[in-house]
Amino acid sequence: MVETIEWTAEGVVMIDQTRLPRETVFVTCRSYGEVADAIKTMIIRGAPAIGVAAAMGVAIGVERSDDDFELICSTLAATRPTAVNLFWGIERMRRLHATLAGQSREAITAALIAEAKRVKDEDVAICMAIGAHGADLVPDGKTVLTHCNAGALATAGYGTALGVIRAAVSAGKKIDVFADETRPFLQGARLTAWELQEDGIPTTLITDNMAGHFLKSGRIGCVVVGADRIAGNGDVANKIGTYSVAVLAKENGVPFYVAAPISTLDLTLTSGDQIPIEERSSKEVTEVYGVPVAPVGIAVQNPAFDVTPNRYVAGIITEKGVAYPPFTESLARLANS
Amino acid sequence: MVETIEWTAEGVVMIDQTRLPRETVFVTCRSYGEVADAIKTMIIRGAPAIGVAAAMGVAIGVERSDDDFELICSTLAATRPTAVNLFWGIERMRRLHATLAGQSREAITAALIAEAKRVKDEDVAICMAIGAHGADLVPDGKTVLTHCNAGALATAGYGTALGVIRAAVSAGKKIDVFADETRPFLQGARLTAWELQEDGIPTTLITDNMAGHFLKSGRIGCVVVGADRIAGNGDVANKIGTYSVAVLAKENGVPFYVAAPISTLDLTLTSGDQIPIEERSSKEVTEVYGVPVAPVGIAVQNPAFDVTPNRYVAGIITEKGVAYPPFTESLARLANS
Repeated sequence: MVETIEWTAEGVVMIDQTRLPRETVFVTCRSYGEVADAIKTMIIRGAPAIGVAAAMGVAIGVERSDDDFELICSTLAATRPTAVNLFWGIERMRRLHATLAGQSREAITAALIAEAKRVKDEDVAICMAIGAHGADLVPDGKTVLTHCNAGALATAGYGTALGVIRAAVSAGKKIDVFADETRPFLQGARLTAWELQEDGIPTTLITDNMAGHFLKSGRIGCVVVGADRIAGNGDVANKIGTYSVAVLAKENGVPFYVAAPISTLDLTLTSGDQIPIEERSSKEVTEVYGVPVAPVGIAVQNPAFDVTPNRYVAGIITEKGVAYPPFTESLARLANS
Repeated sequence: MVETIEWTAEGVVMIDQTRLPRETVFVTCRSYGEVADAIKTMIIRGAPAIGVAAAMGVAIGVERSDDDFELICSTLAATRPTAVNLFWGIERMRRLHATLAGQSREAITAALIAEAKRVKDEDVAICMAIGAHGADLVPDGKTVLTHCNAGALATAGYGTALGVIRAAVSAGKKIDVFADETRPFLQGARLTAWELQEDGIPTTLITDNMAGHFLKSGRIGCVVVGADRIAGNGDVANKIGTYSVAVLAKENGVPFYVAAPISTLDLTLTSGDQIPIEERSSKEVTEVYGVPVAPVGIAVQNPAFDVTPNRYVAGIITEKGVAYPPFTESLARLANS
């Protein structure tokens, strides 16, 4: 498996996720501005991966620019509004930075770089733990449905939702995967299908509007998705279309699980209604790889995320264990454990 | 508005719906084999339009070939399995043909051509009647959500679902439309958005997986879609993704209507489970206008239709009036009225 993101002497190296699976191209970000652009243009995406990128962005900003620390942080924070891991990654660097006051620039830089690398290393370990906790929930001999990409590419490695799938396969379960293509950005078709194919896990690609049909068919044993932000009550913001899958799963008696690190929890929010939803460019909808698929001048809405109310969620799989309803209690307990 | 299909001295002329909205190209089918190919490759699509094409295909087959009448009929019938209007159109021509036995070839041909033209002219009138019956059901001041294309292009003109929308607008209702793009064939993005834009009806294009999000938002007043086959109990086969929209509408208290001519009813079926569902080429999913969007070799499922159980359907709008649950009674009553 290729690395999603790496700290190197050259800069922050990322695999360009806008060009997968057609081309495997790596981008080197040599400044915090380039890291911010990479997050904004979705060269790197996926909430946990964005958290790592943000931490590395802060580190490279301090290392290579004379800009004010808060300017570095606010520039990175202004890239995307929904995934809370972005703000979590920046906040973690800010807290460390505050403890370094008075030290030499070299010492501060070294400490921040070490912390950013730690954020990355921890993320892989967290994904492995999520996988271990989630594997038990996956019914043997059935199909797992997933939406968007919550895989190795959405994290520092292994993945959250795909981590659960990988762990279930490693545990010997005979499962296959249905991957929603996930319009408009096609993370399912381009990234999830590619990742699972590389791993040799049997995967079938479907369009988003087929998910309901297959949930009704009885072949889907469970749904597992990632998350961009989880409110204190267990409402889940995730890639647009997740809400639909959750409703259709519930309607057909199929458990719907969310796999995410504790850093995706936003306990400052009591409800998912408070989560800001990013609206992205209409061109993502009207064009596919630059090819127009709609009449010129048509109006478009392009919310990148939706909110799934907690009543549709069977469980939230974290590195500290699985939270079950009522989530206000179970999530607070896990977060503080 | 351009004509979807026309009988001309040259042959059966159709607008090529695979190339809209980028190019307005007309195809002339000079044999029944070419008509069959046009149906199969979706140069013409939409259940009522397919019914008209089938009738014209039979007429041109008798006019221009010496092939056996039943071979002509079975060739046309073998093109697509789900839309019952195909078989209805052929059956109507077959019944007429049986009454013409013993007449001159000229007389038989003239009668069949006249009948095929009548099928077309009646279809427009039927759509207008559907619109008139359905307009009352559309809440004023809200958004109508539709899926796929059940418009002028799916019929001989005016449309079924879009006929209801057009009639509501003509009646002075202040509505706008959200059009699901409808992967994989993008009939919503390419055809519905284009048709409604031409008519000056405010239309917003969304990806299929956004429909749930907007149904939850409260702005959608009703959903109106077409149908490819309706079983006697009111179960509805329609473009893949319709079932999902219906479940999401019900979950959010939004009425879900189906607009279709009586010829779309298949009263020989007691349940939608008996409707054959066409599986189409994987390339429709893995490529967009020939541009690959998924890794080479990935498995694909591509059912072109799904079945919406009758419990999600608020009403079925036909040219003879609106059928309400329980549909087994109301549909039989309308069909026999």
